[in-house]
Amino acid sequence: MKKALGIDIGGTKILYGIVNEQGEVVSEIQKTATPKTADEIYSTLKKIIDENYDNIDVVGLSSAGAVNIENTRVLSSTPNLPDGYNQIDFSTLCDKKVYVENDANCACAAEYKNGAAKGFRTVLMITIGTGIGGGVISDGKLFRGSSGNALEVGSMKIFADKRQKCTCGRYDCWESYASGTGLKNCAKIGAKEYSEFKTSIYKDKNPDEITTYDITDGLQAKDTFSVRVFNQWMEYMYIGLVSLTDIFNPDCIVISGGMCNFVEVQQLEDKINAESVVTDVKVKRATTGNNAGMIGAGVLALE
Amino acid sequence: MKKALGIDIGGTKILYGIVNEQGEVVSEIQKTATPKTADEIYSTLKKIIDENYDNIDVVGLSSAGAVNIENTRVLSSTPNLPDGYNQIDFSTLCDKKVYVENDANCACAAEYKNGAAKGFRTVLMITIGTGIGGGVISDGKLFRGSSGNALEVGSMKIFADKRQKCTCGRYDCWESYASGTGLKNCAKIGAKEYSEFKTSIYKDKNPDEITTYDITDGLQAKDTFSVRVFNQWMEYMYIGLVSLTDIFNPDCIVISGGMCNFVEVQQLEDKINAESVVTDVKVKRATTGNNAGMIGAGVLALE
Repeated sequence: MKKALGIDIGGTKILYGIVNEQGEVVSEIQKTATPKTADEIYSTLKKIIDENYDNIDVVGLSSAGAVNIENTRVLSSTPNLPDGYNQIDFSTLCDKKVYVENDANCACAAEYKNGAAKGFRTVLMITIGTGIGGGVISDGKLFRGSSGNALEVGSMKIFADKRQKCTCGRYDCWESYASGTGLKNCAKIGAKEYSEFKTSIYKDKNPDEITTYDITDGLQAKDTFSVRVFNQWMEYMYIGLVSLTDIFNPDCIVISGGMCNFVEVQQLEDKINAESVVTDVKVKRATTGNNAGMIGAGVLALE
Repeated sequence: MKKALGIDIGGTKILYGIVNEQGEVVSEIQKTATPKTADEIYSTLKKIIDENYDNIDVVGLSSAGAVNIENTRVLSSTPNLPDGYNQIDFSTLCDKKVYVENDANCACAAEYKNGAAKGFRTVLMITIGTGIGGGVISDGKLFRGSSGNALEVGSMKIFADKRQKCTCGRYDCWESYASGTGLKNCAKIGAKEYSEFKTSIYKDKNPDEITTYDITDGLQAKDTFSVRVFNQWMEYMYIGLVSLTDIFNPDCIVISGGMCNFVEVQQLEDKINAESVVTDVKVKRATTGNNAGMIGAGVLALE
């Protein structure tokens, strides 16, 4: 069986290991701090590849940002990575095939091959963190669009009347309602609109300073304000997911990212299947965790 | 070059002709009235195929309704087609390959192969009539989802607060704002909300009875109420299309269907490219017209 060196380039660390065609990690997983300059990132990657060169067939890289259609460069500026990063031609790192893919697409491939979505046909993966990212694999093939930018689902609009400005400057992006930032926005607006705020454990807090942790802690403490804010957030999550279900007709939706443990997956599945116009879908939480990028990059490079 | 018999099964007529691999119609186009029972539809199709049998390699059928993943049956009930229609196994019509596909998907294939989207990589086709349908082809392959139901884009929600009930019974479906029905809804609501209604040529009309033709006629007559209603409708059209652009990253969007001649395609293209987070897209009007289903069914059957 062929093997890939899977490398996940994060803003703070680079994680890597050898991955086989079934998406299994067949080496120790190693990590190193992400250097501060593009040149140092390049030489660090080269060193990691050289060390593993004899044991691998291909190299897969997972990175934040939009990737070009040839899977050799990261095009967009990525706030957590240094200037010049988007000038790197990763295909020059070694004479074996080097394949770069966006981190959300890699995570989708990891879940499809050896995670929560193993055995499903059309998989939609949604990553919920500060923003919302996504990926789709259907019949084993990643949906990339005309230039590799597809699945910018965080920018889908869930209102059509310019109601709430997103951090990106546009209006009513799904991620301004249903991401971690969205949960904060729900709390801020809820503090003005919900009578429950007056008796909330957070009633003396500046509404702008209520955090996502406040709301998830408030849920545990059965604070009625936090419960109402959370339910509104889940409703926004649902609105986007039922639209995406009708659009992609997935048989599995995987929820991943920093906020995924707070999401009520069974409730989402029940509501989506009650309303969508397409065949039923399973909603699951991701299982590949921090290794998602590394595994997915390896799996995709091997295809 | 291989040839397909392309057959478009409509609610009132069946249109058919021989199509080659380039999507060109290489025979006379013929039509016959759609029979009133499923049995008669089956025998009519059999007769059409028998007459053309010696000149074709495969048969492609275009039909309203959701098609199964094997492309042999139409699963959903289709209001314009008789009871028992969804019991037909079209693969039994002859001993050559028979391939059934949804009419929106067929139209997308026709525009991709030999219409407005010829030469593009990722094509999103949107059909605007009483409702809204869609299809996506990327790298020559139709996106079908897990069971063939994908691209139910008319059901995408463009509000998240249960503002307007759709004819389907759900709330805030894109098609209740941006289809022909949507234009009527815009007029009905505009008559209550816009001061321009008081001086409109339609001021004495019951707002529930203002038709899509009234608004498009009003546009010609420079009626300020009709202009405002139309602009709101175009805004709703835009909201859905910019979301779908971010989701699919198409390089070409084709607008087809009964309402397509009213849509300002250049305005949509400019607005989408100014706002979307992905690479630029061309927005075009469909060119295959009434032959779209026949051509697309033929092209898809040949693949």
